[in-house]
Amino acid sequence: MQMRAVIFDGAGGTDVIRLGDVPKPAVAPGQVRVRVHAAALNRADLLQRRGGYAAPPGWPSQIPGLEFAGEVEAVYRDDVTRWSPGDRVMGLVGGGGQAEYVVVGEDELIPVPEGMALTDAAAIPESFLTAYDALVVRARLREGERLLIHAAGSGLGTAAAQIGRRIGAAMLGTSRSAAKLARAAVFGVTGIDTSAAGFRDAVHEPVDVILDVLGGAAFRDHLELLAPRGRLVLLGLLRGHLAETDLALILRKRLEVIGSVMRTRGAEERAALAREFTDVMVPLFEHGVLAPVVDRVIPIGDVRSGHAALEANDTFGKIVLSWGAEPGSAA
Amino acid sequence: MQMRAVIFDGAGGTDVIRLGDVPKPAVAPGQVRVRVHAAALNRADLLQRRGGYAAPPGWPSQIPGLEFAGEVEAVYRDDVTRWSPGDRVMGLVGGGGQAEYVVVGEDELIPVPEGMALTDAAAIPESFLTAYDALVVRARLREGERLLIHAAGSGLGTAAAQIGRRIGAAMLGTSRSAAKLARAAVFGVTGIDTSAAGFRDAVHEPVDVILDVLGGAAFRDHLELLAPRGRLVLLGLLRGHLAETDLALILRKRLEVIGSVMRTRGAEERAALAREFTDVMVPLFEHGVLAPVVDRVIPIGDVRSGHAALEANDTFGKIVLSWGAEPGSAA
Repeated sequence: MQMRAVIFDGAGGTDVIRLGDVPKPAVAPGQVRVRVHAAALNRADLLQRRGGYAAPPGWPSQIPGLEFAGEVEAVYRDDVTRWSPGDRVMGLVGGGGQAEYVVVGEDELIPVPEGMALTDAAAIPESFLTAYDALVVRARLREGERLLIHAAGSGLGTAAAQIGRRIGAAMLGTSRSAAKLARAAVFGVTGIDTSAAGFRDAVHEPVDVILDVLGGAAFRDHLELLAPRGRLVLLGLLRGHLAETDLALILRKRLEVIGSVMRTRGAEERAALAREFTDVMVPLFEHGVLAPVVDRVIPIGDVRSGHAALEANDTFGKIVLSWGAEPGSAA
Repeated sequence: MQMRAVIFDGAGGTDVIRLGDVPKPAVAPGQVRVRVHAAALNRADLLQRRGGYAAPPGWPSQIPGLEFAGEVEAVYRDDVTRWSPGDRVMGLVGGGGQAEYVVVGEDELIPVPEGMALTDAAAIPESFLTAYDALVVRARLREGERLLIHAAGSGLGTAAAQIGRRIGAAMLGTSRSAAKLARAAVFGVTGIDTSAAGFRDAVHEPVDVILDVLGGAAFRDHLELLAPRGRLVLLGLLRGHLAETDLALILRKRLEVIGSVMRTRGAEERAALAREFTDVMVPLFEHGVLAPVVDRVIPIGDVRSGHAALEANDTFGKIVLSWGAEPGSAA
């Protein structure tokens, strides 16, 4: 049995991307096969396309895609009791999400919030699980604390802002686009326009938590900006990986520098986070407290244009790739 | 009312140290005055003597001493109900411990373990509270994990080794002295002799937790030696404060770098840690699971020789300064 999937033919520009046929994955014990309806793009897909971010062992190496939303199509015999065919689910994968089918451990799936379109749900897992894990689990962000969010208009940034607002943090957000900052202000983010100058001088009071996707030379500024007992969660290295570090700042201010990445996590950790997210966060989507921010939904056949738009920093929120009409919809 | 105290007359060598008379401190609401029987020396005292580690605001600036053991002498009227005169107590202070009397918030005091001499108890607070906070609270060291301890023969090192043994960690410890490593082996520490070569090549498997008192150039080695999800607790900067850092190691391995220092903590935090330590750790001293390691007890009048011995790295465990015969003893 074959299925359609996005395939990277080697490393390079958008021309290495194509839709192609690959074997449909089989379900093993404890696993569920999901008919993917929609899968969001991530900056990690661009990195992987350029050859800089290979899939971890055990995940498809040629098929990109770190998240998906769809319907359960098959479960492994009677072994899986939690899900039945037709259930609407979403989740993270280490790769292979931009295909017609994904196979996932049953404990790693998250139910799609009631009443939410799958093209919206597809924009949730990577951004909101990452932001939840970083801000709530790792950084233990508390009411009244000051939070600095970089790339406030990104999927991660818009998710973090909503979670920060929910917790009651005072939020600063950076972007090189005044238009994106205006939109982020809706979530309570005070904008720092970095189109002309760095963020350093625009932060006038120490911050308690930093969501750092920059790394590199910004690291030094970050350590200086952190308040005593501040936490920096390192999620990306857009400005490079080497940093001259003043360890005295870490020691004296009793800072925490916490590295985090979703993709390489093992099944047990994925399952634990999925369970916690299902209990704590899914109801907040159902009650309208949180909402995924979707810049646009495009047919998966247009995946190249999606890469180009993301590369141009031309988006507010996520780009979602769709396989076609929503299951059960009139179309 | 006057009392005797160790005084630093300016900054410099051991010649700036003298015993002198200073005003006996008064108790304020919620406070207890302790007649100090013994107070241990710390490397921080040497730093302070040289002018590099001033007492934080609110603590005596000229009188060194970060820990003490003694007897409650006075409490603030009826305000303090937890302690009575004669109670045997120990604790941390931000300065002023090497005096006949210290005044401490009642919640920051810890009962001396039953049956323990005050000259032993004086060697507990700084080493064991720091090690407990670093390994248990901050690094969440678990059974079977690998722990790297630097300066395995120091007060902190010997405390960390005992706590690590209790948790069931596999321990590596560095020292430039083969004799100290032989003694640390009693606690289950596998020794790394750094008299001729660095520790880097002697660590053959990744470690989960590092108790880092080195900082500086060792930081890079530490990040490389840490296993995925490893934690480094930074407690000192013996090798300097600047470090070229590969943030990609922190990100990919999802490391945590945790700065910690006891001295600058506020009353609330000190109290919370003292309470937890009283509940969890004091019984372990009473049951013989933990024991402070005292290199020698010297009369407090010989404090200069204590500094010299510590400066010469000539000690295994702590140097304790004593004000005289144990209260209630026959002497």
